[in-house]
Amino acid sequence: MTDKGLIRIAILGFGTVGAGVYQLVQRQKEELEAKTGRSAEVAKVLVRDASKPREGIDASVLTDSFKEILGDPSIDIVVEVMGGIEPARTYITQALQAGKNVVTANKDLMATHGGELLALAKEMGKDLLFEAAVAGGIPIIRPMKQCLAGNHMTQVMGIVNGTTNYILTKMAQEGMEFDEALAKATELGYAEADPTADIEAYDAGRKLAILASLAFHSRVTFSDVYTEGITKITAADIRYAREMGSVIKLLAIARETAEGIEAGVQPMLISQSHPMAAVNDVFNAVFIHGDAVDDVMFYGRGAGRFPTASACMGDVVDIMRNIQYGCTGRIGCGCYRQLPIKPMADTEQKYFFRLRCADRPGVLAAISSVMGRMGVSIKQMVQKPTENDTVAELVLITDSVKEASFMEALEEIKGLDVVYEVASMIRVHE
Amino acid sequence: MTDKGLIRIAILGFGTVGAGVYQLVQRQKEELEAKTGRSAEVAKVLVRDASKPREGIDASVLTDSFKEILGDPSIDIVVEVMGGIEPARTYITQALQAGKNVVTANKDLMATHGGELLALAKEMGKDLLFEAAVAGGIPIIRPMKQCLAGNHMTQVMGIVNGTTNYILTKMAQEGMEFDEALAKATELGYAEADPTADIEAYDAGRKLAILASLAFHSRVTFSDVYTEGITKITAADIRYAREMGSVIKLLAIARETAEGIEAGVQPMLISQSHPMAAVNDVFNAVFIHGDAVDDVMFYGRGAGRFPTASACMGDVVDIMRNIQYGCTGRIGCGCYRQLPIKPMADTEQKYFFRLRCADRPGVLAAISSVMGRMGVSIKQMVQKPTENDTVAELVLITDSVKEASFMEALEEIKGLDVVYEVASMIRVHE
Repeated sequence: MTDKGLIRIAILGFGTVGAGVYQLVQRQKEELEAKTGRSAEVAKVLVRDASKPREGIDASVLTDSFKEILGDPSIDIVVEVMGGIEPARTYITQALQAGKNVVTANKDLMATHGGELLALAKEMGKDLLFEAAVAGGIPIIRPMKQCLAGNHMTQVMGIVNGTTNYILTKMAQEGMEFDEALAKATELGYAEADPTADIEAYDAGRKLAILASLAFHSRVTFSDVYTEGITKITAADIRYAREMGSVIKLLAIARETAEGIEAGVQPMLISQSHPMAAVNDVFNAVFIHGDAVDDVMFYGRGAGRFPTASACMGDVVDIMRNIQYGCTGRIGCGCYRQLPIKPMADTEQKYFFRLRCADRPGVLAAISSVMGRMGVSIKQMVQKPTENDTVAELVLITDSVKEASFMEALEEIKGLDVVYEVASMIRVHE
Repeated sequence: MTDKGLIRIAILGFGTVGAGVYQLVQRQKEELEAKTGRSAEVAKVLVRDASKPREGIDASVLTDSFKEILGDPSIDIVVEVMGGIEPARTYITQALQAGKNVVTANKDLMATHGGELLALAKEMGKDLLFEAAVAGGIPIIRPMKQCLAGNHMTQVMGIVNGTTNYILTKMAQEGMEFDEALAKATELGYAEADPTADIEAYDAGRKLAILASLAFHSRVTFSDVYTEGITKITAADIRYAREMGSVIKLLAIARETAEGIEAGVQPMLISQSHPMAAVNDVFNAVFIHGDAVDDVMFYGRGAGRFPTASACMGDVVDIMRNIQYGCTGRIGCGCYRQLPIKPMADTEQKYFFRLRCADRPGVLAAISSVMGRMGVSIKQMVQKPTENDTVAELVLITDSVKEASFMEALEEIKGLDVVYEVASMIRVHE
């Protein structure tokens, strides 16, 4: 193999994923050559402190200078696995401007600045690939951009955050409350020291922005996505949901409607018979509806060193093939439409809610009367005993109704004398 | 758009799938241009009788002469959806030789002659894509060749035949016997007039040959695959399997082992908690284990006009992009290894079997003694009542053991005076 055959890679960041990518390149040397006709090596790894000894890596490839990578014309591919907006955004911009191809696992960045970075990649005729930014190891971006390219995709739905799915699974299977399940997730390393981005659904919201952009060919950014976390979900909600044939999952859902794109991440009831209901623990899944393919689902590990590194390597191999065939930039940004975002208040769905109210005749009549006036039909109602004879708990599921109407009805119900508390409100997927 | 921008497509065959591809090209005209930078039109459709009027298609594109397509240098892509070995093999060979790119949905052909056709495509620098040949609309080939390219894949398992999965689902959910469920499948159009290829697992065997070749980068042909159909499965087998926490599925499984590739399609018990156990009705799924990604699963519709046409269109779009970027032939045959095929007799697994035998003391001792001598351990045993006081039914599951040893033990058990019948033998997936 001549030097011309060698493709040189720089990895930005040597954390969990960076080390995984490094190891896979080493492990797969021969396979990479057989698959692409080119050999690959990791030429440089950007770290904060290059003098710190690290196991399993040749110290000579470590550098703390991004300029050294940028200024080295023999580096063809930059793999960014640092995370966060800056300096990743600047580094990727400069790498593309310098004519390098880029692989990134950075969902924060792609969900916010994906449009501008993909435009730059296109201008430079280079690849900017980001399979690892959504659902970790699960192949999803290439299937959407290529395999399903003959479809008009109308819905994409995902369980795309392993931490919250683990917490909800523990709550469902072992009856734990949220705090206990979160503590367990933290203990096992599934939740970070500051779990906010996971439990408040920001992480899933970023992934949904990327998925929606791919599905509808119209740029959706994180700020367009409604997010609601799982901190208020209780073991009781999950128990009642089960009695009604459903489980509660943190669902990231985007739909193309006549009035624009709906994009929201929120805990939702979903039927036990839906394939997504069986996605448990830290597993992720993405469920897509296309006009030709009907429903397809992709399932696997959404995080972790090697699953995420696997996704990065898929991108690296694709770029190696593109370099070999002189066709980098072959598949760029697919956002050729500009659709409006539909406000959450205009979306329609069913609602599950629990009320603590006076246990006496006429209460249900008062509640139904408010709902009726607002055009909200009740589809299911169960009364539950409470610890107190004078207090009843009502569990209700509405028919499909506009969010704004339901919220207005709920506000009015809160104001009724006989209603002591709205214990929970969870949307229902159908 | 100049004529240079136009990509011309010929479809060979205008049956269910051919008509679907034609309709998708019409329906997606603008999207194709936005996605690939080129426009597309169906220039010719090969049919047996071009004079027969057909709905929804311009008669001027119909032809009964393949030579007309072959001799038209303006046709860039040939989509073969006729099925069968000949004349498809000759047509694809000639199309590639004439410098055309080819999309095929033909599993029979790819499972038997895939190697030679892919070699020819490589020689010509053209694309031969076949996403529709396995699992219909489910994206699987591109994920395996590209997204998972950084993995060493060690196992691929599929439910890849919708007809048999529908039959087994009906048997499980409604207690039907095989014949009744087959009749229902025929009535609904899920089974063909001659259902042999489906129920004897030949169809699934062909798909497994293709999947195994992709997973292990070593050519596996249909003749290398062990096939066993579902005709002997009874409602009782399914009921007993359920009692033991399992369902029965027609599983196509290929594994890379130190002694070579194992590849077989057979009905198997699989744990109810496995994601594949929830794949019901005509749905298909493919479950892959890779050293980096761990487990991933792809789920969707494995047949039908538009799901299959969706897969063909994904290939068409990829070729359009490759034509635009001058990189056809970019990803060809991935079989760069040559691994032996491991004989079925050398594989190891657990076995579920049912015996009708004398209902008297000492029977189990006689059976266990034979099994013990052959090195077969019994892991689970349940005795079932029968309609006859003197006859007992034993349901057994062995520990993992070599197929040859188990078969030898079973032969000897059949010869025992106290054993009247081996009512069934089904392998167990773990």
